[in-house]
Amino acid sequence: MPNWVDGHPADSLSIKDRGLAYGDGLFETIAVRGGRPPLLEYHMARLADGCRRLGIPLDLQLMRTELVAFSAGLGEGVAKLMVTRGDGLRGYAPPPVALPRRILQSAAFPLYPENNAQQGVQLFPCSTRLAEQPMLAGLKHLNRLEQVLARAEWQDGEHAEGLMRDVSGRVIEGVFSNLFMVHDGVLLTADLSRCGVAGVMRAALLDSAKAQGLQVEVRDITYDEFIQADEVFLCNSLFGVWPVRSVTGHHWPVGPLTRKLQVIARDLLDI
Amino acid sequence: MPNWVDGHPADSLSIKDRGLAYGDGLFETIAVRGGRPPLLEYHMARLADGCRRLGIPLDLQLMRTELVAFSAGLGEGVAKLMVTRGDGLRGYAPPPVALPRRILQSAAFPLYPENNAQQGVQLFPCSTRLAEQPMLAGLKHLNRLEQVLARAEWQDGEHAEGLMRDVSGRVIEGVFSNLFMVHDGVLLTADLSRCGVAGVMRAALLDSAKAQGLQVEVRDITYDEFIQADEVFLCNSLFGVWPVRSVTGHHWPVGPLTRKLQVIARDLLDI
Repeated sequence: MPNWVDGHPADSLSIKDRGLAYGDGLFETIAVRGGRPPLLEYHMARLADGCRRLGIPLDLQLMRTELVAFSAGLGEGVAKLMVTRGDGLRGYAPPPVALPRRILQSAAFPLYPENNAQQGVQLFPCSTRLAEQPMLAGLKHLNRLEQVLARAEWQDGEHAEGLMRDVSGRVIEGVFSNLFMVHDGVLLTADLSRCGVAGVMRAALLDSAKAQGLQVEVRDITYDEFIQADEVFLCNSLFGVWPVRSVTGHHWPVGPLTRKLQVIARDLLDI
Repeated sequence: MPNWVDGHPADSLSIKDRGLAYGDGLFETIAVRGGRPPLLEYHMARLADGCRRLGIPLDLQLMRTELVAFSAGLGEGVAKLMVTRGDGLRGYAPPPVALPRRILQSAAFPLYPENNAQQGVQLFPCSTRLAEQPMLAGLKHLNRLEQVLARAEWQDGEHAEGLMRDVSGRVIEGVFSNLFMVHDGVLLTADLSRCGVAGVMRAALLDSAKAQGLQVEVRDITYDEFIQADEVFLCNSLFGVWPVRSVTGHHWPVGPLTRKLQVIARDLLDI
Protein backbone atom coordinates (compact mmCIF):
# COMPACT_ATOMS: atom_id res chain seq x y z
CA MET A 1 0.00 0.00 0.00
CA PRO A 2 1.63 3.28 -1.05
CA ASN A 3 1.52 6.41 1.08
CA TRP A 4 -0.39 9.48 -0.09
CA VAL A 5 0.46 13.17 -0.03
CA ASP A 6 -2.40 15.46 -1.02
CA GLY A 7 -4.31 12.54 -2.48
CA HIS A 8 -1.50 11.16 -4.64
CA PRO A 9 0.95 8.31 -4.02
CA ALA A 10 4.13 9.84 -2.59
CA ASP A 11 6.80 9.07 -0.01
CA SER A 12 8.31 12.52 0.32
CA LEU A 13 7.30 16.11 0.91
CA SER A 14 8.78 19.59 0.59
CA ILE A 15 11.42 20.61 3.14
CA LYS A 16 9.49 23.90 3.35
CA ASP A 17 6.57 22.16 5.06
CA ARG A 18 5.65 23.87 8.32
CA GLY A 19 4.96 20.49 9.87
CA LEU A 20 8.69 19.85 9.70
CA ALA A 21 9.77 23.40 10.54
CA TYR A 22 7.55 23.96 13.58
CA GLY A 23 5.42 20.86 14.14
CA ASP A 24 2.66 23.09 12.78
CA GLY A 25 0.02 20.45 12.26
CA LEU A 26 -2.00 17.57 13.66
CA PHE A 27 -2.19 13.81 13.34
CA GLU A 28 -4.48 10.85 13.87
CA THR A 29 -3.48 7.22 14.30
CA ILE A 30 -6.35 5.22 12.88
CA ALA A 31 -7.11 1.49 13.09
CA VAL A 32 -8.34 0.10 9.79
CA ARG A 33 -10.40 -3.11 9.83
CA GLY A 34 -12.03 -4.72 6.82
CA GLY A 35 -11.21 -1.69 4.70
CA ARG A 36 -12.73 0.89 6.99
CA PRO A 37 -11.75 3.04 10.01
CA PRO A 38 -14.15 2.01 12.81
CA LEU A 39 -13.79 5.22 14.86
CA LEU A 40 -14.04 7.52 11.84
CA GLU A 41 -16.47 10.04 13.35
CA TYR A 42 -14.36 10.45 16.49
CA HIS A 43 -11.16 10.92 14.49
CA MET A 44 -12.79 13.47 12.19
CA ALA A 45 -14.31 15.36 15.13
CA ARG A 46 -10.96 15.65 16.89
CA LEU A 47 -9.22 16.67 13.68
CA ALA A 48 -11.85 19.34 13.06
CA ASP A 49 -11.42 20.67 16.60
CA GLY A 50 -7.63 20.75 16.20
CA CYS A 51 -7.83 22.59 12.87
CA ARG A 52 -10.21 25.12 14.40
CA ARG A 53 -7.97 25.74 17.42
CA LEU A 54 -4.76 26.02 15.34
CA GLY A 55 -6.46 27.97 12.54
CA ILE A 56 -5.57 25.43 9.83
CA PRO A 57 -8.10 25.79 6.96
CA LEU A 58 -8.33 22.08 6.13
CA ASP A 59 -10.96 20.86 3.67
CA LEU A 60 -12.45 18.33 6.09
CA GLN A 61 -14.77 16.75 3.54
CA LEU A 62 -11.86 16.10 1.18
CA MET A 63 -9.79 14.72 4.06
CA ARG A 64 -12.58 12.34 5.03
CA THR A 65 -13.06 11.16 1.44
CA GLU A 66 -9.33 10.49 1.11
CA LEU A 67 -9.16 8.66 4.44
CA VAL A 68 -12.10 6.43 3.51
CA ALA A 69 -10.56 5.61 0.11
CA PHE A 70 -7.12 5.04 1.69
CA SER A 71 -8.64 2.68 4.27
CA ALA A 72 -10.44 0.72 1.58
CA GLY A 73 -7.12 0.22 -0.23
CA LEU A 74 -5.31 -0.69 2.99
CA GLY A 75 -7.78 -3.31 4.18
CA GLU A 76 -6.17 -4.21 7.52
CA GLY A 77 -3.61 -2.10 9.36
CA VAL A 78 -2.99 1.39 10.64
CA ALA A 79 -3.53 4.61 8.72
CA LYS A 80 -1.53 7.50 10.07
CA LEU A 81 -3.04 10.78 8.98
CA MET A 82 -1.05 14.01 9.23
CA VAL A 83 -2.28 17.49 8.37
CA THR A 84 0.13 20.40 8.28
CA ARG A 85 -0.33 24.10 7.52
CA GLY A 86 1.56 23.38 4.29
CA ASP A 87 4.61 25.13 2.94
CA GLY A 88 5.80 28.27 4.65
CA LEU A 89 7.98 31.24 3.97
CA ARG A 90 10.73 32.08 6.46
CA GLY A 91 9.44 32.88 9.95
CA TYR A 92 6.68 31.80 12.32
CA ALA A 93 3.86 33.91 10.82
CA PRO A 94 1.33 31.64 9.14
CA PRO A 95 1.16 32.41 5.40
CA PRO A 96 -1.79 34.71 4.48
CA VAL A 97 -3.26 31.90 2.38
CA ALA A 98 -2.29 28.54 3.85
CA LEU A 99 -2.62 25.44 1.68
CA PRO A 100 -2.80 22.62 4.23
CA ARG A 101 -1.00 19.41 3.33
CA ARG A 102 -2.71 16.03 3.74
CA ILE A 103 -0.52 13.00 4.41
CA LEU A 104 -1.65 9.39 4.77
CA GLN A 105 0.82 6.67 5.75
CA SER A 106 0.06 2.99 6.02
CA ALA A 107 1.52 0.48 8.46
CA ALA A 108 0.82 -3.08 9.51
CA PHE A 109 -1.27 -3.48 12.63
CA PRO A 110 1.16 -3.66 15.60
CA LEU A 111 1.60 -7.08 17.20
CA TYR A 112 0.95 -6.51 20.88
CA PRO A 113 1.61 -9.37 23.32
CA GLU A 114 -1.66 -11.20 24.01
CA ASN A 115 -0.94 -10.90 27.75
CA ASN A 116 -1.24 -7.13 27.70
CA ALA A 117 -5.00 -7.34 27.21
CA GLN A 118 -5.50 -10.51 29.27
CA GLN A 119 -3.34 -10.16 32.38
CA GLY A 120 -2.61 -6.45 32.17
CA VAL A 121 0.55 -4.38 31.87
CA GLN A 122 3.21 -2.80 34.03
CA LEU A 123 3.62 0.98 33.80
CA PHE A 124 7.03 2.61 33.73
CA PRO A 125 7.01 5.75 35.93
CA CYS A 126 8.31 8.39 33.51
CA SER A 127 10.27 11.24 34.99
CA THR A 128 9.46 13.41 31.96
CA ARG A 129 6.57 15.61 33.06
CA LEU A 130 3.93 17.23 30.85
CA ALA A 131 4.09 21.02 30.71
CA GLU A 132 0.84 22.91 31.25
CA GLN A 133 -0.23 24.71 28.08
CA PRO A 134 -4.01 25.21 27.89
CA MET A 135 -3.80 26.54 24.32
CA LEU A 136 -2.51 23.18 23.05
CA ALA A 137 -3.97 20.80 25.66
CA GLY A 138 -6.01 17.91 24.33
CA LEU A 139 -4.82 18.32 20.74
CA LYS A 140 -2.97 15.57 18.91
CA HIS A 141 -0.58 18.10 17.39
CA LEU A 142 2.86 17.48 15.92
CA ASN A 143 4.82 18.93 18.88
CA ARG A 144 5.56 15.65 20.62
CA LEU A 145 9.06 15.97 22.10
CA GLU A 146 7.71 15.30 25.60
CA GLN A 147 6.42 11.91 24.43
CA VAL A 148 9.70 11.19 22.61
CA LEU A 149 11.70 11.91 25.78
CA ALA A 150 9.30 9.93 27.96
CA ARG A 151 9.28 6.90 25.65
CA ALA A 152 13.10 6.94 25.56
CA GLU A 153 13.21 6.45 29.35
CA TRP A 154 12.75 2.68 29.17
CA GLN A 155 13.90 0.05 26.70
CA ASP A 156 13.01 -3.17 28.51
CA GLY A 157 10.09 -5.28 27.34
CA GLU A 158 8.60 -5.55 30.83
CA HIS A 159 6.92 -2.16 30.72
CA ALA A 160 4.29 -1.92 27.99
CA GLU A 161 3.56 1.76 28.66
CA GLY A 162 4.78 4.71 30.71
CA LEU A 163 2.91 6.81 33.24
CA MET A 164 2.96 10.55 32.52
CA ARG A 165 2.25 13.15 35.19
CA ASP A 166 2.14 16.90 34.70
CA VAL A 167 4.72 19.33 36.12
CA SER A 168 2.43 19.76 39.16
CA GLY A 169 2.42 16.01 39.82
CA ARG A 170 -1.14 15.20 38.67
CA VAL A 171 -1.68 11.84 36.99
CA ILE A 172 -2.54 12.50 33.32
CA GLU A 173 -2.07 9.67 30.82
CA GLY A 174 0.18 7.09 29.21
CA VAL A 175 2.81 8.03 26.64
CA PHE A 176 0.64 6.73 23.78
CA SER A 177 -2.66 6.03 25.52
CA ASN A 178 -5.14 7.50 27.99
CA LEU A 179 -5.56 6.35 31.56
CA PHE A 180 -8.76 5.45 33.39
CA MET A 181 -9.34 4.53 37.01
CA VAL A 182 -12.24 3.03 38.91
CA HIS A 183 -12.98 4.42 42.40
CA ASP A 184 -15.97 2.98 44.31
CA GLY A 185 -17.67 2.09 41.05
CA VAL A 186 -17.06 5.50 39.49
CA LEU A 187 -15.12 5.66 36.21
CA LEU A 188 -12.49 8.36 36.44
CA THR A 189 -10.14 9.94 33.90
CA ALA A 190 -7.94 13.04 33.92
CA ASP A 191 -9.15 16.46 32.90
CA LEU A 192 -7.07 17.39 29.85
CA SER A 193 -7.55 21.14 29.76
CA ARG A 194 -3.93 21.92 30.75
CA CYS A 195 -2.02 19.12 29.01
CA GLY A 196 -2.43 15.67 27.54
CA VAL A 197 -3.90 14.23 24.37
CA ALA A 198 -7.66 13.67 24.31
CA GLY A 199 -7.70 10.23 22.69
CA VAL A 200 -10.55 9.13 20.48
CA MET A 201 -10.91 5.83 22.37
CA ARG A 202 -11.12 7.83 25.60
CA ALA A 203 -13.93 9.89 24.06
CA ALA A 204 -15.71 6.81 22.72
CA LEU A 205 -15.45 4.97 26.06
CA LEU A 206 -16.74 8.00 27.96
CA ASP A 207 -19.73 8.18 25.60
CA SER A 208 -20.40 4.44 25.87
CA ALA A 209 -20.05 4.43 29.65
CA LYS A 210 -22.50 7.32 30.03
CA ALA A 211 -24.92 5.65 27.61
CA GLN A 212 -24.81 2.53 29.79
CA GLY A 213 -25.59 4.53 32.90
CA LEU A 214 -22.14 4.28 34.46
CA GLN A 215 -21.04 7.08 36.74
CA VAL A 216 -18.22 9.01 35.08
CA GLU A 217 -15.94 11.78 36.35
CA VAL A 218 -13.42 13.80 34.34
CA ARG A 219 -11.29 15.82 36.73
CA ASP A 220 -7.83 16.37 38.22
CA ILE A 221 -6.37 13.21 39.75
CA THR A 222 -3.65 13.14 42.40
CA TYR A 223 -1.01 10.44 42.59
CA ASP A 224 -2.53 9.22 45.87
CA GLU A 225 -5.94 8.75 44.26
CA PHE A 226 -4.30 6.87 41.42
CA ILE A 227 -2.48 4.55 43.83
CA GLN A 228 -5.66 3.94 45.81
CA ALA A 229 -7.82 3.18 42.76
CA ASP A 230 -9.76 -0.09 42.69
CA GLU A 231 -8.96 -0.65 39.02
CA VAL A 232 -6.67 1.06 36.51
CA PHE A 233 -6.63 0.66 32.74
CA LEU A 234 -5.24 2.23 29.57
CA CYS A 235 -6.95 2.77 26.25
CA ASN A 236 -6.17 3.86 22.74
CA SER A 237 -7.63 3.45 19.28
CA LEU A 238 -5.30 0.60 18.30
CA PHE A 239 -5.18 -1.78 21.27
CA GLY A 240 -8.54 -0.91 22.84
CA VAL A 241 -8.21 -1.50 26.61
CA TRP A 242 -5.28 -2.88 28.59
CA PRO A 243 -5.68 -3.43 32.33
CA VAL A 244 -2.85 -1.92 34.39
CA ARG A 245 -1.35 -4.42 36.80
CA SER A 246 1.30 -2.34 38.53
CA VAL A 247 3.55 0.68 38.76
CA THR A 248 6.71 0.64 40.95
CA GLY A 249 5.49 -1.44 43.86
CA HIS A 250 1.77 -0.67 43.59
CA HIS A 251 -0.49 -3.42 42.30
CA TRP A 252 -4.07 -3.47 41.11
CA PRO A 253 -6.34 -6.41 40.35
CA VAL A 254 -7.97 -6.63 36.94
CA GLY A 255 -11.51 -5.60 37.87
CA PRO A 256 -15.00 -6.06 36.45
CA LEU A 257 -15.43 -2.53 35.07
CA THR A 258 -12.13 -2.84 33.20
CA ARG A 259 -13.34 -6.08 31.61
CA LYS A 260 -16.67 -4.48 30.75
CA LEU A 261 -14.99 -1.54 28.99
CA GLN A 262 -12.56 -3.89 27.28
CA VAL A 263 -15.53 -5.59 25.62
CA ILE A 264 -16.97 -2.21 24.64
CA ALA A 265 -13.61 -1.18 23.14
CA ARG A 266 -13.44 -4.41 21.13
CA ASP A 267 -16.90 -3.73 19.77
CA LEU A 268 -15.92 -0.17 18.88
CA LEU A 269 -12.84 -1.45 17.05
CA ASP A 270 -14.64 -4.34 15.31
CA ILE A 271 -12.12 -6.79 16.80
CA MET B 1 21.28 28.39 -4.33
CA PRO B 2 19.81 24.88 -3.95
CA ASN B 3 18.84 23.40 -0.60
CA TRP B 4 20.72 20.41 0.79
CA VAL B 5 19.52 17.25 2.49
CA ASP B 6 22.30 15.08 3.94
CA GLY B 7 24.88 16.98 1.93
CA HIS B 8 23.17 16.69 -1.45
CA PRO B 9 20.96 19.15 -3.36
CA ALA B 10 17.33 18.30 -2.52
CA ASP B 11 14.03 20.04 -1.88
CA SER B 12 12.15 17.16 -0.31
CA LEU B 13 12.51 14.56 2.40
CA SER B 14 10.88 11.31 3.49
CA ILE B 15 7.41 11.53 5.08
CA LYS B 16 8.80 9.08 7.66
CA ASP B 17 11.12 11.76 9.07
CA ARG B 18 10.65 12.16 12.83
CA GLY B 19 11.11 15.89 12.46
CA LEU B 20 7.76 15.94 10.70
CA ALA B 21 6.09 13.30 12.86
CA TYR B 22 7.03 14.68 16.27
CA GLY B 23 9.14 17.81 15.80
CA ASP B 24 11.97 15.49 16.90
CA GLY B 25 14.87 17.72 16.01
CA LEU B 26 16.58 21.10 16.26
CA PHE B 27 17.24 24.10 14.07
CA GLU B 28 19.52 27.11 13.71
CA THR B 29 18.80 30.29 11.75
CA ILE B 30 22.18 31.51 10.60
CA ALA B 31 23.21 34.83 9.04
CA VAL B 32 25.65 34.37 6.18
CA ARG B 33 27.89 37.31 5.21
CA GLY B 34 30.64 37.23 2.61
CA GLY B 35 30.30 33.47 2.30
CA ARG B 36 30.63 32.67 5.98
CA PRO B 37 28.44 32.37 9.10
CA PRO B 38 29.80 34.97 11.55
CA LEU B 39 28.42 33.33 14.72
CA LEU B 40 29.47 29.82 13.70
CA GLU B 41 30.95 28.78 17.05
CA TYR B 42 27.85 29.88 18.97
CA HIS B 43 25.52 28.08 16.55
CA MET B 44 27.57 24.89 16.70
CA ALA B 45 27.77 25.01 20.49
CA ARG B 46 23.99 25.37 20.84
CA LEU B 47 23.38 22.61 18.31
CA ALA B 48 25.79 20.32 20.16
CA ASP B 49 24.01 21.03 23.44
CA GLY B 50 20.61 20.36 21.87
CA CYS B 51 21.77 17.06 20.36
CA ARG B 52 23.18 16.00 23.70
CA ARG B 53 19.98 16.85 25.58
CA LEU B 54 17.68 15.18 23.02
CA GLY B 55 20.04 12.23 22.48
CA ILE B 56 20.43 12.81 18.74
CA PRO B 57 23.74 11.25 17.60
CA LEU B 58 24.63 13.95 15.06
CA ASP B 59 28.06 13.95 13.43
CA LEU B 60 28.87 17.52 14.48
CA GLN B 61 32.08 17.74 12.48
CA LEU B 62 30.27 16.72 9.29
CA MET B 63 27.47 19.20 10.05
CA ARG B 64 29.99 22.02 10.52
CA THR B 65 31.80 21.14 7.30
CA GLU B 66 28.52 21.13 5.38
CA LEU B 67 27.39 24.42 6.91
CA VAL B 68 30.68 26.12 6.02
CA ALA B 69 30.51 24.82 2.43
CA PHE B 70 26.83 25.78 2.14
CA SER B 71 27.58 29.29 3.41
CA ALA B 72 30.41 29.70 0.92
CA GLY B 73 28.00 28.81 -1.89
CA LEU B 74 25.28 31.09 -0.53
CA GLY B 75 27.45 34.18 -0.17
CA GLU B 76 24.88 36.56 1.38
CA GLY B 77 21.64 35.50 3.03
CA VAL B 78 20.25 33.18 5.65
CA ALA B 79 21.09 29.51 6.08
CA LYS B 80 18.43 27.59 7.97
CA LEU B 81 19.88 24.41 9.40
CA MET B 82 17.60 21.62 10.62
CA VAL B 83 18.68 18.38 12.24
CA THR B 84 16.17 15.62 12.88
CA ARG B 85 16.47 12.16 14.42
CA GLY B 86 15.93 10.85 10.88
CA ASP B 87 13.37 8.34 9.70
CA GLY B 88 11.33 6.49 12.27
CA LEU B 89 9.23 3.42 12.57
CA ARG B 90 5.72 3.74 13.98
CA GLY B 91 5.63 5.05 17.56
CA TYR B 92 7.48 7.52 19.78
CA ALA B 93 10.38 5.23 20.71
CA PRO B 94 13.58 6.50 19.10
CA PRO B 95 14.96 3.88 16.70
CA PRO B 96 17.78 1.79 18.22
CA VAL B 97 20.18 3.17 15.62
CA ALA B 98 19.12 6.68 14.64
CA LEU B 99 20.50 8.17 11.43
CA PRO B 100 20.08 11.91 11.96
CA ARG B 101 19.05 13.94 8.92
CA ARG B 102 20.86 17.19 8.03
CA ILE B 103 18.90 19.85 6.17
CA LEU B 104 20.20 23.20 4.93
CA GLN B 105 17.84 25.74 3.38
CA SER B 106 18.84 29.06 1.88
CA ALA B 107 16.89 32.31 1.92
CA ALA B 108 17.54 35.94 1.08
CA PHE B 109 18.45 38.14 4.02
CA PRO B 110 15.18 39.62 5.36
CA LEU B 111 14.58 43.30 4.62
CA TYR B 112 13.84 44.85 7.99
CA PRO B 113 12.66 48.48 8.11
CA GLU B 114 15.66 50.74 8.81
CA ASN B 115 13.65 52.39 11.58
CA ASN B 116 13.56 49.21 13.68
CA ALA B 117 17.26 49.54 14.50
CA GLN B 118 17.32 53.35 14.55
CA GLN B 119 14.19 54.46 16.40
CA GLY B 120 13.18 51.16 17.96
CA VAL B 121 10.15 48.94 17.72
CA GLN B 122 6.74 48.50 19.31
CA LEU B 123 6.05 45.15 20.99
CA PHE B 124 2.73 43.39 20.62
CA PRO B 125 1.65 41.94 24.00
CA CYS B 126 1.00 38.27 23.08
CA SER B 127 -1.65 36.46 25.08
CA THR B 128 -0.05 33.12 24.17
CA ARG B 129 2.03 32.16 27.20
CA LEU B 130 5.08 29.92 27.27
CA ALA B 131 4.59 26.62 29.12
CA GLU B 132 7.23 25.66 31.68
CA GLN B 133 9.15 22.58 30.56
CA PRO B 134 12.68 22.45 32.00
CA MET B 135 13.60 19.41 29.88
CA LEU B 136 13.20 21.43 26.66
CA ALA B 137 13.89 24.97 27.92
CA GLY B 138 16.56 26.91 26.08
CA LEU B 139 16.65 24.52 23.11
CA LYS B 140 15.87 25.67 19.59
CA HIS B 141 13.89 22.49 18.92
CA LEU B 142 11.27 21.87 16.25
CA ASN B 143 8.26 22.02 18.63
CA ARG B 144 7.30 25.61 17.97
CA LEU B 145 3.50 25.78 18.06
CA GLU B 146 3.61 28.35 20.87
CA GLN B 147 5.57 30.70 18.60
CA VAL B 148 3.22 29.98 15.68
CA LEU B 149 0.18 30.86 17.81
CA ALA B 150 1.86 33.94 19.29
CA ARG B 151 3.01 35.25 15.89
CA ALA B 152 -0.52 34.77 14.51
CA GLU B 153 -1.89 37.18 17.13
CA TRP B 154 -1.02 40.32 15.15
CA GLN B 155 -0.95 41.08 11.43
CA ASP B 156 -0.40 44.83 11.43
CA GLY B 157 2.95 46.30 10.41
CA GLU B 158 3.15 48.53 13.49
CA HIS B 159 4.38 45.80 15.79
CA ALA B 160 7.76 44.43 14.75
CA GLU B 161 7.81 41.78 17.47
CA GLY B 162 5.67 40.26 20.20
CA LEU B 163 6.30 40.02 23.93
CA MET B 164 6.11 36.50 25.35
CA ARG B 165 5.57 35.81 29.03
CA ASP B 166 5.44 32.42 30.69
CA VAL B 167 2.30 30.87 32.17
CA SER B 168 3.32 32.35 35.55
CA GLY B 169 3.50 35.86 34.07
CA ARG B 170 7.29 36.31 33.99
CA VAL B 171 8.74 38.29 31.09
CA ILE B 172 10.75 35.89 28.91
CA GLU B 173 11.48 36.87 25.31
CA GLY B 174 10.21 37.95 21.91
CA VAL B 175 8.56 35.50 19.51
CA PHE B 176 11.73 35.28 17.38
CA SER B 177 14.26 37.17 19.49
CA ASN B 178 15.56 37.50 23.04
CA LEU B 179 14.82 40.41 25.33
CA PHE B 180 17.26 42.49 27.38
CA MET B 181 16.63 45.25 29.88
CA VAL B 182 18.82 47.82 31.56
CA HIS B 183 18.16 48.57 35.25
CA ASP B 184 20.41 51.11 37.00
CA GLY B 185 23.24 50.32 34.62
CA VAL B 186 22.84 46.53 35.00
CA LEU B 187 22.17 44.48 31.87
CA LEU B 188 19.35 42.06 32.60
CA THR B 189 17.88 39.13 30.64
CA ALA B 190 15.52 36.31 31.54
CA ASP B 191 16.64 33.03 33.00
CA LEU B 192 15.66 30.39 30.41
CA SER B 193 15.75 27.24 32.52
CA ARG B 194 11.95 26.74 32.43
CA CYS B 195 11.07 27.96 28.94
CA GLY B 196 12.33 30.13 26.10
CA VAL B 197 14.96 29.80 23.41
CA ALA B 198 18.55 30.64 24.38
CA GLY B 199 19.51 32.66 21.31
CA VAL B 200 23.06 32.71 20.01
CA MET B 201 23.07 36.52 19.83
CA ARG B 202 21.93 36.58 23.46
CA ALA B 203 24.86 34.33 24.36
CA ALA B 204 27.32 36.38 22.31
CA LEU B 205 26.11 39.68 23.81
CA LEU B 206 26.32 38.27 27.34
CA ASP B 207 29.91 37.19 26.66
CA SER B 208 30.84 40.54 25.11
CA ALA B 209 29.19 42.52 27.90
CA LYS B 210 31.03 40.55 30.57
CA ALA B 211 34.30 40.91 28.67
CA GLN B 212 33.78 44.69 28.66
CA GLY B 213 33.21 44.74 32.40
CA LEU B 214 29.47 45.44 32.25
CA GLN B 215 27.36 44.18 35.13
CA VAL B 216 25.11 41.37 33.88
CA GLU B 217 22.25 39.49 35.54
CA VAL B 218 20.39 36.45 34.19
CA ARG B 219 17.35 35.81 36.35
CA ASP B 220 13.55 35.77 36.60
CA ILE B 221 11.99 39.09 35.58
CA THR B 222 8.55 40.28 36.66
CA TYR B 223 6.31 42.36 34.43
CA ASP B 224 6.71 45.30 36.84
CA GLU B 225 10.50 45.18 36.53
CA PHE B 226 10.15 45.08 32.77
CA ILE B 227 7.85 48.12 32.74
CA GLN B 228 10.19 50.03 35.08
CA ALA B 229 13.34 49.26 33.06
CA ASP B 230 15.52 52.18 31.95
CA GLU B 231 16.12 50.61 28.54
CA VAL B 232 14.68 47.61 26.72
CA PHE B 233 16.00 45.93 23.59
CA LEU B 234 15.65 42.78 21.49
CA CYS B 235 18.34 40.74 19.81
CA ASN B 236 18.73 37.86 17.42
CA SER B 237 21.33 36.53 15.04
CA LEU B 238 19.81 38.16 11.95
CA PHE B 239 18.91 41.72 12.94
CA GLY B 240 21.40 42.19 15.77
CA VAL B 241 19.83 44.65 18.26
CA TRP B 242 16.55 46.55 18.03
CA PRO B 243 15.68 49.04 20.77
CA VAL B 244 12.16 48.58 22.17
CA ARG B 245 10.19 51.81 22.17
CA SER B 246 6.91 50.70 23.68
CA VAL B 247 4.40 48.05 24.68
CA THR B 248 0.71 48.91 25.25
CA GLY B 249 1.06 52.33 26.82
CA HIS B 250 4.53 51.93 28.32
CA HIS B 251 7.39 53.77 26.64
CA TRP B 252 11.13 53.57 26.94
CA PRO B 253 13.83 55.87 25.57
CA VAL B 254 16.56 54.41 23.40
CA GLY B 255 19.40 54.43 25.90
CA PRO B 256 23.20 54.43 25.78
CA LEU B 257 23.71 50.77 26.73
CA THR B 258 21.32 49.68 23.98
CA ARG B 259 23.35 51.68 21.46
CA LYS B 260 26.59 50.24 22.80
CA LEU B 261 25.32 46.66 22.44
CA GLN B 262 23.91 47.46 19.02
CA VAL B 263 27.42 48.32 17.86
CA ILE B 264 28.76 45.11 19.41
CA ALA B 265 26.04 43.09 17.63
CA ARG B 266 26.92 44.71 14.31
CA ASP B 267 30.55 43.79 14.82
CA LEU B 268 29.57 40.22 15.70
CA LEU B 269 27.48 39.98 12.53
CA ASP B 270 30.06 41.69 10.28
CA ILE B 271 27.46 44.28 9.23
